[in-house]
Amino acid sequence: REYRGAPTGTDLECEGWRQEAALRLLNNNLDPEVAENPEELVVYGGTGRAARSWDAYDAILEQLRDLADDETLLVQSGKPVGRFETHERAPRVLIANSNLVGKWDNWRHFHELEAEGKIMYGQMTAGSWAYIGTQGIIQGTFETLAELARQQFDGDLAGRVVVTGGLGGMGGAQPLAVTMNRGVCIAAEVDEDRIDRRIETGYCEEKTDDVEEALDRAREAVRAAEPYSVGVHVNAADLLEELLERDFVPDVVTDQTSAHDVLEGYYPSGYTVEAADRLREEDPDTYRNESLDTMERHVDAILELQKRGAVAFEYGNNIRGQVAEHRNHEAAFDFPGFVPAYIRPQFCRGKGPFRWLALSGDPEDIYRTDEAVLKLFPEKDHLRRWIELAQEQVQFQGLPSRVCWLGYNTEGEGTEGLTERARFALRINELVADGEIAAPIVVTRDHLDAGSVASPYRETEDMKDGTDAVADWPILNALLNCAAGADIVSVHDGGGVGIGNAIHANNHVVLDGSDLAAKKARAVFTTDPGTGVIRHADAGYEEAITEARESGVEIPMDER
Amino acid sequence: REYRGAPTGTDLECEGWRQEAALRLLNNNLDPEVAENPEELVVYGGTGRAARSWDAYDAILEQLRDLADDETLLVQSGKPVGRFETHERAPRVLIANSNLVGKWDNWRHFHELEAEGKIMYGQMTAGSWAYIGTQGIIQGTFETLAELARQQFDGDLAGRVVVTGGLGGMGGAQPLAVTMNRGVCIAAEVDEDRIDRRIETGYCEEKTDDVEEALDRAREAVRAAEPYSVGVHVNAADLLEELLERDFVPDVVTDQTSAHDVLEGYYPSGYTVEAADRLREEDPDTYRNESLDTMERHVDAILELQKRGAVAFEYGNNIRGQVAEHRNHEAAFDFPGFVPAYIRPQFCRGKGPFRWLALSGDPEDIYRTDEAVLKLFPEKDHLRRWIELAQEQVQFQGLPSRVCWLGYNTEGEGTEGLTERARFALRINELVADGEIAAPIVVTRDHLDAGSVASPYRETEDMKDGTDAVADWPILNALLNCAAGADIVSVHDGGGVGIGNAIHANNHVVLDGSDLAAKKARAVFTTDPGTGVIRHADAGYEEAITEARESGVEIPMDER
Ligand SMILES: NC(=O)c1ccc[n+]([C@@H]2O[C@H](COP(=O)([O-])OP(=O)(O)OC[C@H]3O[C@@H](n4cnc5c(N)ncnc54)[C@H](O)[C@@H]3O)[C@@H](O)[C@H]2O)c1
Ligand SMILES: NC(=O)c1ccc[n+]([C@@H]2O[C@H](COP(=O)([O-])OP(=O)(O)OC[C@H]3O[C@@H](n4cnc5c(N)ncnc54)[C@H](O)[C@@H]3O)[C@@H](O)[C@H]2O)c1
Repeated sequence: REYRGAPTGTDLECEGWRQEAALRLLNNNLDPEVAENPEELVVYGGTGRAARSWDAYDAILEQLRDLADDETLLVQSGKPVGRFETHERAPRVLIANSNLVGKWDNWRHFHELEAEGKIMYGQMTAGSWAYIGTQGIIQGTFETLAELARQQFDGDLAGRVVVTGGLGGMGGAQPLAVTMNRGVCIAAEVDEDRIDRRIETGYCEEKTDDVEEALDRAREAVRAAEPYSVGVHVNAADLLEELLERDFVPDVVTDQTSAHDVLEGYYPSGYTVEAADRLREEDPDTYRNESLDTMERHVDAILELQKRGAVAFEYGNNIRGQVAEHRNHEAAFDFPGFVPAYIRPQFCRGKGPFRWLALSGDPEDIYRTDEAVLKLFPEKDHLRRWIELAQEQVQFQGLPSRVCWLGYNTEGEGTEGLTERARFALRINELVADGEIAAPIVVTRDHLDAGSVASPYRETEDMKDGTDAVADWPILNALLNCAAGADIVSVHDGGGVGIGNAIHANNHVVLDGSDLAAKKARAVFTTDPGTGVIRHADAGYEEAITEARESGVEIPMDER
Repeated sequence: REYRGAPTGTDLECEGWRQEAALRLLNNNLDPEVAENPEELVVYGGTGRAARSWDAYDAILEQLRDLADDETLLVQSGKPVGRFETHERAPRVLIANSNLVGKWDNWRHFHELEAEGKIMYGQMTAGSWAYIGTQGIIQGTFETLAELARQQFDGDLAGRVVVTGGLGGMGGAQPLAVTMNRGVCIAAEVDEDRIDRRIETGYCEEKTDDVEEALDRAREAVRAAEPYSVGVHVNAADLLEELLERDFVPDVVTDQTSAHDVLEGYYPSGYTVEAADRLREEDPDTYRNESLDTMERHVDAILELQKRGAVAFEYGNNIRGQVAEHRNHEAAFDFPGFVPAYIRPQFCRGKGPFRWLALSGDPEDIYRTDEAVLKLFPEKDHLRRWIELAQEQVQFQGLPSRVCWLGYNTEGEGTEGLTERARFALRINELVADGEIAAPIVVTRDHLDAGSVASPYRETEDMKDGTDAVADWPILNALLNCAAGADIVSVHDGGGVGIGNAIHANNHVVLDGSDLAAKKARAVFTTDPGTGVIRHADAGYEEAITEARESGVEIPMDER
């Protein structure tokens, strides 16, 4: 079916902006600029859909168009199933996607139901109508590195060298995310075309075949404390071993080759891409074996660099697990995953990927919010860097939008006890009320957030108290945000880690300049990051307990 | 610890009746008259608890005592973990118990976490503070038989014979539930003490060892169209075979022996209780074998009676499953379970076990509501019967309370589009406002309700469209009731069928006579039964689609 993305401008198809926002977000998710395969209603992440079928899509739109300001629409796995009178402060849309009773909570049963059109895979932001394209990836990588810089260095990566591998779909964001943090990035990539693509789109500055040359340029940049990035056309394991030989110890070492897939994702050393592709066809067993041999050397080199002083972490590609499992190499887990190391400390503070979209469709509205967020948080250096660089380098896709990490933190003068998220949302609401912004702004976030997810393979890996799999938290998060008055609330099973491996929640608040929006924003942007703080405090994280005390988050059993 | 149950009267410990209601309900759940083992915080159903620990219990009370009218307390698996400002119309307490991510959603992982004090088993009404003692059992059995009478006979059991087995904890309610429906009950029970206990407490009228005598008395009662019940001291399988020999075909045949447990629950034929108990000790394998032999004969006799015209159903004791699994006897499933047969048709109409408690502690308040419900629904014959008999025969335990089944059904004169549940709740609210009732009434329900549960082994067994395990529904139910303004909302994993086998939700509304309470009641008692109607309409049940059309429940894709 012919498809064109979200309506824009200030004329409404619906009875109010909250319903209109839901309608535009659903359509934005399916914008050909945003979605991977809009014809199939697929937004991203394999089969993550925005609606169960085109019939269901049409019915959702029909419902939204005449939904009253005190009604609530129910969407069950991408299908509208009911509509009831509630009240204005309540959500306009409630969504539950792909949730299954535990014993049946697996791909096999899911696929049986899916084949009969009885369920839909919602991924994370696909089924909750909150996807905003690739901007999320680059921003997430930027933020992870910023946290690393805060923890390990002086708050940025100036004069620091990050060595990594893989310049593919997600990994390609690494060089830019490093230079945005003022650092120097050396990235190994076996496929020269991939390096070229990153250079064309401005994600990487230079390329070379020569490791020595790459190191020279990196040393120069370090001396000048200038950002710099180079793609090295070499196998990542070989690059790290060459560094060890030369005793070149980078400040940070990580990796985003597709090591999660031994056969289709990772390239073994000693082969060109073409030769490896041929081997994969002709002799997959040998390929697997060679691939794992290289991975083992790769992990050993990371561990040795760590020993010599580099900060090492795994970037979610499971390279530790592969080597531990298939090579019986338990030491592989001697370097940490990225969530426990760099995301969790932020979750403890209630920080997470806050994002907002301009319903007008006008980029100027986003620039106005950019100004506002910088003015509100002048002390946040890397926020300024991110916003400035995003303005320069990140193209809008679909409805203009922005992401940045904001947290709880009610401290400081003039905050009036409001969280970072609430302060910014209220400021946007004022700008909409004053006509400085053409149409309402919708604020939402990733499902990966401080209090909204139970996911033992990623967001809640290795929790301090072993409660990785306890799903009471995302359910309480959803109920509480519903109670606080979010305009859309959703609960999903699955996401990036698959059916049965995670439960997570999301919410949207529509800032239309009204007092009602202000009330909703004030409450939701306290409860939402707040559940992150209490979840981590309950697990025993000192940072969370400190945040709670400093910011006045009530922890009923703190003293017991 | 010394324990005394809920405070009563009109003096408040808390800042408002909503918080006070939560406090009293939690304490009522733990009343020694109500709970199985209050010292261990166990309310019922094995280890179903009301709070994670006595420390957690104290902290919950402390929180409730100074919770403001616009605040919401979060309880995670029986422990208070947070508290946030929301608004008056929002819930005061949000509860999530024993929810786990699918892959870890099993007893093994639950018990690991429980041993470390990280989680609690909430059962159904234990962890949501809505248990009211054994009244629920007798009323549920009464209602199941009433539905059977509606479906199969002329609306009651007058002149009908129900044959069953088992007069234990739950099964003992059967004779009274039959006579309350005006029928005749013949119940086989091997343990004479159990029969005596039922007679003492008025649940059963007579006992005998002699099948012939029981049949004579039953025939007499049928002729006179009088209610009558008799416990026959005999094995249930033997009783049924004797009926077949005599070609005595009862109108209804079912069973509540503890067949779910081959060794500890069910008694084999040919043994006295003492002899069987000895065999169990000395030779459990032979016991199991004999037990299954008897069960197979038991099921065959039920099937044969069914063939000769009796209405047969399984009453949730898994006797069909035992015989099918251990005796390879597939035909065992040729008679239905009680939910698909007698509960689901009610769920399709949004009907379920509505219950209410008098916070005053004064039985007079309940009698006042009894009058009100009878006046409101003069056409509901079995409701009148139930209320009158409950007044006579069912003792209050803890806070005086009552249960009855009410549904959606907005039809008829003077309903003003309100559901049965809403009409009654609003009437109670008026009585509280007028001072006719001494203190507020709290309305809640079982987690077993029309739209609130996904449980493939019980409430959603054998759904028409195969969506038994889809858990989006209870999550939407909880979110929607939260949006509508219920005062307590809860989501649990587990319950009677165990961890990983069910997800279900509950809610409470406090009727304090205020306008706010009226708004909450009107909304919640529409959304709550409403989700039952839409869930069953979505699964393709004609009764639900009809109810939706007649009562004006919006089904967005009805016509597609
Ligand atoms: N949040 C998260 O958990 C998260 C985030 C980002 C990426 N990841 C993981 O990172 C990995 C990369 O993701 P992607 O989307 O960029 O994958 P991709 O397949 O698009 O790219 C992988 C790149 O690595 C290159 N490569 C493979 N083996 C190599 C080797 N030995 N040396 C040098 N280059 C090699 C390939 O040529 C390719 O360009 C995946 O495993 C992904 O799951 C996880
Ligand atoms: N909602 C539901 O699904 C539901 C509701 C009620 C009961 N049940 C099931 O019903 C069964 C009974 O529950 P309960 O709490 O009364 O159990 P219980 O163990 O207290 O009582 C069982 C009774 O059956 C008697 N008995 C056992 N075998 C017998 C035989 N062959 N012949 C005659 N009598 C026999 C025992 O002496 C005992 O008195 C259980 O399996 C329970 O799970 C299910």
